[in-house]
Formats: sequence, structure tokens, C-alpha cells
Amino acid sequence: MADVAVLDRVTLESGATLAPVEVAYTDVGPRAAPVVYILHALTGDAEAVDWWETLVGPGRAVDTDRFRVICANLLGGCRGTTGPSSIDPATGEPYGLGFPLVSVRDLVTVHRALLAQLGVARVHALVGGSLGGMQALQWALDFPDEVERAALICASARLNAQNIAFTKVAREAIMQRGGMDVARMMAHVTYLSVEGMQIKFSRLRRDDARPMSFESDFEVEHYLDHQARVFLERFDPLTYVYLSRAMDYFDPFAAHSGTPSTRFLLVSFDSDWRFGSEHSVAIERELRARSAAVERHEVRSPWGHDSFLLDVPEYHRHVRELLSA
Amino acid sequence: MADVAVLDRVTLESGATLAPVEVAYTDVGPRAAPVVYILHALTGDAEAVDWWETLVGPGRAVDTDRFRVICANLLGGCRGTTGPSSIDPATGEPYGLGFPLVSVRDLVTVHRALLAQLGVARVHALVGGSLGGMQALQWALDFPDEVERAALICASARLNAQNIAFTKVAREAIMQRGGMDVARMMAHVTYLSVEGMQIKFSRLRRDDARPMSFESDFEVEHYLDHQARVFLERFDPLTYVYLSRAMDYFDPFAAHSGTPSTRFLLVSFDSDWRFGSEHSVAIERELRARSAAVERHEVRSPWGHDSFLLDVPEYHRHVRELLSA
Repeated sequence: MADVAVLDRVTLESGATLAPVEVAYTDVGPRAAPVVYILHALTGDAEAVDWWETLVGPGRAVDTDRFRVICANLLGGCRGTTGPSSIDPATGEPYGLGFPLVSVRDLVTVHRALLAQLGVARVHALVGGSLGGMQALQWALDFPDEVERAALICASARLNAQNIAFTKVAREAIMQRGGMDVARMMAHVTYLSVEGMQIKFSRLRRDDARPMSFESDFEVEHYLDHQARVFLERFDPLTYVYLSRAMDYFDPFAAHSGTPSTRFLLVSFDSDWRFGSEHSVAIERELRARSAAVERHEVRSPWGHDSFLLDVPEYHRHVRELLSA
Repeated sequence: MADVAVLDRVTLESGATLAPVEVAYTDVGPRAAPVVYILHALTGDAEAVDWWETLVGPGRAVDTDRFRVICANLLGGCRGTTGPSSIDPATGEPYGLGFPLVSVRDLVTVHRALLAQLGVARVHALVGGSLGGMQALQWALDFPDEVERAALICASARLNAQNIAFTKVAREAIMQRGGMDVARMMAHVTYLSVEGMQIKFSRLRRDDARPMSFESDFEVEHYLDHQARVFLERFDPLTYVYLSRAMDYFDPFAAHSGTPSTRFLLVSFDSDWRFGSEHSVAIERELRARSAAVERHEVRSPWGHDSFLLDVPEYHRHVRELLSA
């Protein structure tokens, strides 16, 4: 179970303020050990040992026997941290679309305020996948002295037009039609690769003898139905809208020219077409142009963007080495 | 303007019948010239010289000075041919979802009935892109004696799991939410390539000084808004649902083992990720296994699946050669 910290007041990049901000977080491992701070992606929560069990836990690459591991639900989230589904104290009603827009930098502001409350001034490492890696990058560029190492897994420093187009379509589905199921289904298509979907589903049907119909008939359709259903039970569509919009505008190198002292690890997956290797290559290029210490690995995996949540030993080894070296 | 032929009765593969079926078609070029029959894709119509003006017209690869060129709106369509938006004579109301499901073979049945009315027993060539190519393939496999040559541009003989997943999401948007705009936007993302979108839009914004918002701000968002808006003015969402479902189930080689006498041309585009070269390679493999005459070309173009509608000279040359040789 996550704990909840309360920040009296948070001022956002836009100038808007939120007061108070509750932050749901988990804090496991030896108190005195070096801190590894986990940053979750669009739909995660504070329970990193659950949703990232392949990477985080006793004996894992992010070893909770050796490191103090902290993870917080993001600002704008719906899993314990203040977000659009929280009650606005000014009205007694949920914020809804009255919640201010948040940037990736705002997410980092809240993480840092939490760590200040916990008495942590510097982390051994930040570890994040996708939007999690984007937060790690923003943090390391803004406050390199606080971040010794940073592992950015299938992250991006700048969404391309296709990425923005996909978030646009999802936002359109959610805001104009209440179509979170549609948005979630589409997201799953972008999280998996062509190859991975073919391995999992091919053209398998529930019943080959059944005539053509508009009902879900192919296995891949049942998968999407299922994913949308379980997601709707636990997630606020507006969190999706707010956090994906933060990604659209993310462009941290535009405002940074100095050399960050953080050591960076970049990992991408060869079948990922949401934030494929070209995104990590672009981050590497920007970091090298600033003389930062960076190593980058493209890892073979058929599972597309989802690979960062799965058991892919080569990628886990790179993270383990970053934390140990 | 298209003419309209009336077929008294059409029996579908499922056993369902439609009576009557109106077929909107165009018929241009010299009456006595060899016939080139154009097969349109998901959202086309009978006016091939309009929507395929890069390929079809006087002096073009499909030269209307040299060929008699016929094109019909598809069964299930909404541009003059009987489809779900047509009036069901049994009820006096539009068919809507009471319209029977149609297969690619059913589309071909209607094309052949139209040609019989026009007194055409054999065509010089079938030419189709995407779903158009799928109809050409079905026709040539079922009735090779009627089809001397067939040009299949970025076609598929079998959708993969990702393809089916995308049509599922679009159908979900349309049938559960009335979200044709969402479906259309998503389709446009799949018609363009990463590279093509980057060339067209990059991360350009209407106003760089404007603060973050949920309004369309990036140029790619305006493009998608515009495409959805113009599409909704001219198209019936149920046609999209019916014709895309025909594509999901399409698998013509499963029922064919003989050698088709038709000469096939296959063209794919290197940046197409909807029906990329792997789909054309699979068609070629199946045709060669049946000892058919087939040539295949992958053409360089940054514009993804949309390339088949655009001015790509190398691909047009291949079509011209097929028709002339």
C-alpha cells in the first residue's frame, strides 16, 4: 500500500498553483541505502514492485535488498496523487477539465518536493520507461547535482508528428465521445509491435466456423476488448489526457546547453515503433553535444514498446550495471 | 457524373440477397478499346479520373485515350451504389446495420454483373490499390479467364493482427460512440508514414508563443481536424464499417490451388506501414507457388500507404508497362 505525503502548495510552470497536492508513494528497501527513484509512464502508479516486478524487487536489477526504492504516482494521476479526478477544495467538486495543464517539469517539481519531505537530497539513480524516462531526462538536465545516474528506457526527448497525431486521436476520442475504451485500444496497438501481435494472435479466431460478423471474432479483438475493460475499471480518462499532453509539448533540450554531470543509460527496443531507437539516438546526440556521459543500447525484443515492462534479460543487465558500476 | 445500373437481385456469399442493387459507375474512353477496370479502396467512389487523377486520364499510365476505363462505387458504398445508407425496399427505411455483411468476393460479384450488363466479357486489366487490389486478386483467382492482367498496388492477401486491430478500433469508435471523426483521424495516421508526417508537419505549431492547451495547436492536429471534417461531409460511417470488415476476413489463397492465367503486377512502397512490402511479398510467394506470372516492385516513396494516390513516377511506369506489354 502506498503512503500519502501532502505538499501545501505547488506552483506550476504555467504560473498556476495547486494547494494542497497529495502524493501517493511507496518507499521500500533499507533506509540508509542509496536511493533509486522510479518514474512511471502514462498509466502507472506508485506500486513499482507490482507493475515493474520484472525489474524492481529483491534480487532484481533494481534490487530492493540493496537500494532504497521510491516511486510516486504522478501529478495529474488518478492513483492517489492529486489530479483531475481529485476534489478541488475551492469548489468541493472534482477538478475535471478545470485542473491546470501540467508539463513534464511540473511532474518533476512534485517528485523533488516529495524527496525533500523524505529528507533525500540526491538520488543514486532515476529509472523510468517511456514518459518515466522523459521525467528522468528533465530532472537530470534541470538539477544534475541531484541525479548521479539516470536510466531512460524507450524514452523520447521530442515527440514526432506521428506520436503527436496518436495522442491527438486518443484525446479526441476521450474528450468528445467519452471513448476511453477506443483510446486504450489504440494505445495497445502502438505498445505492441507488428511482430509481437502476429506471434500472440496471428489471425486466430474463436470459432472458425462462425460466419462473418461485427462481433469480436478474431483473438486480437478479444484482447483489445479485455484490455479496454480492465483499464476502464481502474483509470481516469482525464489523467490520460493531461499526461499525454505533457508529452506532446516536451522538448527539454531546447532550453539546455550546459553539460549535465549525470551518467546516462539509454535503452531502446528494435521492434518499438512508439518510441523506437531513433528517439534514443536523438537523445544520445543531444547529450554528446553537451559532453555528457552516456551509453546507449538497442536491445532485441519482439514485444515493441511494451518490452520495458517485460522480462528482457539483456535490458535488465544494462540497468543492473548502471546501478552497480 | 456517374451513371447508375440496376441489378435486379444479387446473392451474397453468405446466402443473403439484395434486390435491387444500384451500381454507380463511370465509363470513359473509346468504346471499342480494351477495358481497364478500376477498383477503388475503402473510401473511394466511381469517379476514378477525379480521385486517381495521378494515374488515370488522357496520357496517364491508365490512358483514357487508349483504354476504355470503367470504375464502380463498391457494394456497401455510399456514393451511388447500394449500401447501408440506401433505402431498404422492405421497410422504406435505410438499411443501417440491417444491411448484410459483404465479403470481397461479393464486391467482385457486383462488378462482374455490371460488366455483363455493359456487354464486357473480359477485361484487359484490373487496377486497384489497397482494398482495390484485394478485389483484383479475388477476381483473378476466381475467374482468371476474365482477367488478362491485374495491377495490385499496396494490397494484401491477408491482414495481420495489427491490421485487424486497427480496423477493430475504428469500428469500435464508430459503432459505440458515433466517432467517425476519431476513426478517420486514426486511419490518416496509418495512411501516412513517420517520415512523411515529419516532412509535412514536424513539430510545427500555429503559434509558438501560445501556452499549452488541449486545443489543436500543432499543425498535424489541424491536419487531422480538417481531414475528419471534410470526410464527415461526404461519407457514411457504416460504409467504413462494412468494407473494413470485408478486409478483415479476406483470405483468398486459402480456397485456391490452381494456376491463374492472369499476369500480375505487385507494387508496394517502402514507407507504407499499413500494407507494407511484406504483404506484397506474401502475395508473390502464393502466386509463384501456383506458377502464376508475377512481377513485384518495391518503390521508394516517403508518403506511406497514401503513395498509391500520389504522383510517384516509378510506380506509374510499372503500371503503364503492364498495360502496354
